[in-house]
Amino acid sequence: MGKLGIGVLGVGAMGRRHAENIRRLVPEARLIAVADVALEQARRVAAELEIEHGFSGLDEMLERKDIECVVIATPDKFHAEAIRAAAAAGKHILSEKPLALNLDDALSALDAVAKAGVYLQMGFMRRYDPGYASAMKRIEAGEIGEPVVFKSIGRDKDAPPISSYASKLNGMLFYNNTIHDFDLARWLMKDEVSEVQAYATVAIRPEIAKFGDIVAGVVNLKYGRGAIGNIESYVQAVYGYDVRTEIMGSKASILIGSLQQTPVTFLTDEGGTQRLADHFLSRFDDAYVAEMQDFAQSILKDRAPRVTGEDGLRALEMAVAAEKSYLQSAPCRVGAEGQHATGGRPGNRARES
Amino acid sequence: MGKLGIGVLGVGAMGRRHAENIRRLVPEARLIAVADVALEQARRVAAELEIEHGFSGLDEMLERKDIECVVIATPDKFHAEAIRAAAAAGKHILSEKPLALNLDDALSALDAVAKAGVYLQMGFMRRYDPGYASAMKRIEAGEIGEPVVFKSIGRDKDAPPISSYASKLNGMLFYNNTIHDFDLARWLMKDEVSEVQAYATVAIRPEIAKFGDIVAGVVNLKYGRGAIGNIESYVQAVYGYDVRTEIMGSKASILIGSLQQTPVTFLTDEGGTQRLADHFLSRFDDAYVAEMQDFAQSILKDRAPRVTGEDGLRALEMAVAAEKSYLQSAPCRVGAEGQHATGGRPGNRARES
Amino acid sequence: MGKLGIGVLGVGAMGRRHAENIRRLVPEARLIAVADVALEQARRVAAELEIEHGFSGLDEMLERKDIECVVIATPDKFHAEAIRAAAAAGKHILSEKPLALNLDDALSALDAVAKAGVYLQMGFMRRYDPGYASAMKRIEAGEIGEPVVFKSIGRDKDAPPISSYASKLNGMLFYNNTIHDFDLARWLMKDEVSEVQAYATVAIRPEIAKFGDIVAGVVNLKYGRGAIGNIESYVQAVYGYDVRTEIMGSKASILIGSLQQTPVTFLTDEGGTQRLADHFLSRFDDAYVAEMQDFAQSILKDRAPRVTGEDGLRALEMAVAAEKSYLQSAPCRVGAEGQHATGGRPGNRARES
Amino acid sequence: MGKLGIGVLGVGAMGRRHAENIRRLVPEARLIAVADVALEQARRVAAELEIEHGFSGLDEMLERKDIECVVIATPDKFHAEAIRAAAAAGKHILSEKPLALNLDDALSALDAVAKAGVYLQMGFMRRYDPGYASAMKRIEAGEIGEPVVFKSIGRDKDAPPISSYASKLNGMLFYNNTIHDFDLARWLMKDEVSEVQAYATVAIRPEIAKFGDIVAGVVNLKYGRGAIGNIESYVQAVYGYDVRTEIMGSKASILIGSLQQTPVTFLTDEGGTQRLADHFLSRFDDAYVAEMQDFAQSILKDRAPRVTGEDGLRALEMAVAAEKSYLQSAPCRVGAEGQHATGGRPGNRARES
Repeated sequence: MGKLGIGVLGVGAMGRRHAENIRRLVPEARLIAVADVALEQARRVAAELEIEHGFSGLDEMLERKDIECVVIATPDKFHAEAIRAAAAAGKHILSEKPLALNLDDALSALDAVAKAGVYLQMGFMRRYDPGYASAMKRIEAGEIGEPVVFKSIGRDKDAPPISSYASKLNGMLFYNNTIHDFDLARWLMKDEVSEVQAYATVAIRPEIAKFGDIVAGVVNLKYGRGAIGNIESYVQAVYGYDVRTEIMGSKASILIGSLQQTPVTFLTDEGGTQRLADHFLSRFDDAYVAEMQDFAQSILKDRAPRVTGEDGLRALEMAVAAEKSYLQSAPCRVGAEGQHATGGRPGNRARES
Repeated sequence: MGKLGIGVLGVGAMGRRHAENIRRLVPEARLIAVADVALEQARRVAAELEIEHGFSGLDEMLERKDIECVVIATPDKFHAEAIRAAAAAGKHILSEKPLALNLDDALSALDAVAKAGVYLQMGFMRRYDPGYASAMKRIEAGEIGEPVVFKSIGRDKDAPPISSYASKLNGMLFYNNTIHDFDLARWLMKDEVSEVQAYATVAIRPEIAKFGDIVAGVVNLKYGRGAIGNIESYVQAVYGYDVRTEIMGSKASILIGSLQQTPVTFLTDEGGTQRLADHFLSRFDDAYVAEMQDFAQSILKDRAPRVTGEDGLRALEMAVAAEKSYLQSAPCRVGAEGQHATGGRPGNRARES
Repeated sequence: MGKLGIGVLGVGAMGRRHAENIRRLVPEARLIAVADVALEQARRVAAELEIEHGFSGLDEMLERKDIECVVIATPDKFHAEAIRAAAAAGKHILSEKPLALNLDDALSALDAVAKAGVYLQMGFMRRYDPGYASAMKRIEAGEIGEPVVFKSIGRDKDAPPISSYASKLNGMLFYNNTIHDFDLARWLMKDEVSEVQAYATVAIRPEIAKFGDIVAGVVNLKYGRGAIGNIESYVQAVYGYDVRTEIMGSKASILIGSLQQTPVTFLTDEGGTQRLADHFLSRFDDAYVAEMQDFAQSILKDRAPRVTGEDGLRALEMAVAAEKSYLQSAPCRVGAEGQHATGGRPGNRARES
Repeated sequence: MGKLGIGVLGVGAMGRRHAENIRRLVPEARLIAVADVALEQARRVAAELEIEHGFSGLDEMLERKDIECVVIATPDKFHAEAIRAAAAAGKHILSEKPLALNLDDALSALDAVAKAGVYLQMGFMRRYDPGYASAMKRIEAGEIGEPVVFKSIGRDKDAPPISSYASKLNGMLFYNNTIHDFDLARWLMKDEVSEVQAYATVAIRPEIAKFGDIVAGVVNLKYGRGAIGNIESYVQAVYGYDVRTEIMGSKASILIGSLQQTPVTFLTDEGGTQRLADHFLSRFDDAYVAEMQDFAQSILKDRAPRVTGEDGLRALEMAVAAEKSYLQSAPCRVGAEGQHATGGRPGNRARES
């Protein structure tokens, strides 16, 4: 079995990390090229990682036969477009979340994937975190009984600069951050969310209101089989990057997450202090590696990825519904538009029918 | 300054604890009598606590001059009626939550209190918990900056027996349990909640649906000054009595609560296990004592209680709105009916206008 | 069964707490008098606790028929003498630790107790702490298997002022603080320590060397049945009062202790901070109450106390051996002087033979 | 700067991990060969890591010019001999701990290193753990003030099989496990230990006594500048791999270590359970990578390693002293034999003089 040739599109912090992981920690894969509209940056990363090619865009990568897969780590706004182009060129895809910033864009991306018969994996890396993965094992083994309540918290340490909001390159909080919790809400509960209710606030940062974004949101969830839940997202927690999830079952419950990153407590007359993770790249460093390894192995074995385009669509539908609920001050049904093709090869397809 | 004569109405677990605390831990007070419709039980408790009087009802207590205050620990359904009777007899009152099970009943109780010019303290004992109290001190000192998000969890270990639901003596989950979090939501954030959105479920206990009760609920909060929040209540957590609250501010955040009651970790090849509190009487034992001491001191100094009838009314309005939101699948404004007199002596009054 | 009349000798922080507990939290007992060489202080405490008698010494208490028990909370130096006098007057005794500051003094105190046929309980209150008590239950149920290693840490937040060292009223660190861990080392392991090895330091406080005291000590333990252990004591931990114990067994292990007193975490960009207990009176508040309740019940039922004079002697022997080991830089056998009568009524006796 | 060619001697769990790390996570290095007396195993590992050479011993590696460094991960018994051979061949060395199993062997290894002018780094990987490293940074910044007490715990989950003891390939507990804590005791306190007192036990495993090994040990430490300390090692903790260290300073203290490996709490009516790490390869996975990266960078820059042969010698002297103290039931001076050459290039030397 030869090595899987991969190109990475976008070398911001996230894309750079993916490139590094492929280069160093995924023995089944070979990093062929990185690309970025900032060509200089692409070349610098290529040099640092000691690979040959630093391109200025997707096209150059799509032309190469030795690139079989593309990892998409551009701003959110360009995900769907890049997926369509990569699929059309017959490349398998690992795309960062969200799938798109609106449902039409998402559906046309999934259609392109389906038509091309390529695989698409969504970058919900939390599923690969040792904590979340071990929780899921216990849930699947029936250890918590019937799931009743889902709770999740996702807090960033520092909000993006105002320029980042102004550029509108990334989706608002529900699309860019909460999307991870929307995915967990489906995955860990093994059920679909049928309706949401959301409040949001710009609170301490009123200047972002004009860009349609928010500082914090709370989203209530109603599940198809009767469970309920809540997700809280906050973009400016100051004290650290804090991700925690709880699943309450009829027999037992599970808490995932921790307030402590490094196992050090510093004790003064103020008390004992622990530092938290300050960024998702440190909190989920292992998860990103495991995600990429699993992606490479799936593709090499011609096996549908574990996190599919449909997962991307469902999470996006929840984000769309949450935003609508917030703007209209009313509960909003999720994915009321009906069932959509979500693409992938026939094997992938079969799973969905 | 003589001792404050107190009678306790209702000697279930809660009333018995109040009676014990007054007898043993509130030096400023004297427990004169306990009363319960179960006369035998009242007499037994009186004997155990070595006090003279075990009565069958409130009337006998109200007739006594040496009883200046009445602690009401009956089932929820009778709180308002007992408050009216006690106020009419000129007794000061510490009433367990909720103030009443509907707003009319609550308002007439507060009117009676106002007319009688007596003091009424609501039994929101969490405000007296060392954890919550120290959090509030830091908030009032401005240490967290502007509060942005309020979160609270309240989970009971074991749900009441079905007979308890059938009797309808106590309010449904939002009135009987969540009411504590509704109070915290106002108190810690120093702001009023203007609207709520709620989902609820009977999930694993469908047999309680016919009594109008629920197993779990999630309630989103929208605050007057722009903050948001969420409260989760669950009646059957199995693993313990688990109460936790988080307040996210612009400068810092506070977490109150702990998964560990006794400082013991038992380590086997399964890992390290800590036991949680199993009941509010053990988790909040200190708070109940501090609450009663503060009540006695307030009354003796002719000072309005720190937790007022208005606090009881506001929390009840939130419960009413949460129930309505759940039943109607729509957001619901809190206390839309306008401002109500909430009673107490002139000094108390002044604070509210 | 009438109430047990008790007098408290010494109304420093410890004695005052005992007096308060008896007055308010031990329904079986009646606080008759407090006494202190500082008569004014004794009278003030008597007034505050609303009891009649504040005496200047033990004699006045011993003369009273209604005082059946004496609680000794004087400086360490006077414990044995007070025990002898109280025993001679036929009073039952709860004495603070240590039993004495040397073995001769201790043995003569135990002889006096034995001759008088009174009960003597040693104030090792940690045995009554919910954490330690629940650990012991599990050990006695065989849940940890064979105990192999005993570890204990005892750290005070702030060292006493230099004047306190100069007065020499209390024993050096091993006698005054470590004595608690010496007791736990025997009790939890259900075995005797046969030999110790100790290092100690005056480190950051060289000015106390001339009083024969130390700032920190580490004591290795060798047990009769083959287990080993270590105790660390530190008098100036700055960050809080920190008491933790670990028992490693062949099947499981137990950790007792916690770095967090109040369940509050304050989160800033420095991380999450929890406050510790700052004093034994707050860390062990429940234990002191349970200790006194158990003492009163034992005496009223004419039952030997659970923590006996022999326990006091054995812990003292360990302190003596630890000090000798430190001074002579050599391991030191514990209690090599042989078996001693340890007193109490016949029932008590029988247990020991 | 070309890549550093490295060969790994010994492909048990530890050597295999080093080989993997070099292959995948140390971009500055190239894994040229692995070698093991079990040739089949060496070849299998070579194949899995996709490198060319799997040898049966050190000699084949020493002959190769492209191998500039050797990583020694044989059983303890062969460390010194392999160091001498590698040094004689002019190879730089990263050796697993301990340096040797006796001082003569250690000194002759260091002499060989010194004569050859090669670099030797000792595998005290804990210094590279994020927790320990951040603690050291705070200590070096003076944040804890004067260090007063050093405490360390090192517990393995499962003891080796009896066959492993019988083979005598590895040193007894003080040499094989406690050696890590001996190194930390010097490093974190920035002082030398002058004397130790040790107790040890075979307790629940008497069958290992005949091989001169122990199940648990406690070692008191006396430092040159007046501080004291204690180390506990236990080989059969059942509940997990548990490494914790505390440094008490005059101004603040630091705790390193955690009872929780994965951030998951499983909650049942027994309470909340967290799993611990079960092996040093999982607890210190990041540390092993950082160690190897630092080694490669040091060698490439012709810079003395941060963990030197002298560090290996000093820790060994402590192990020797601890064993002697245990066997002779007496305190034992550390390294009383005087100062020894500890090798390395001139630059390295200079640091030591």
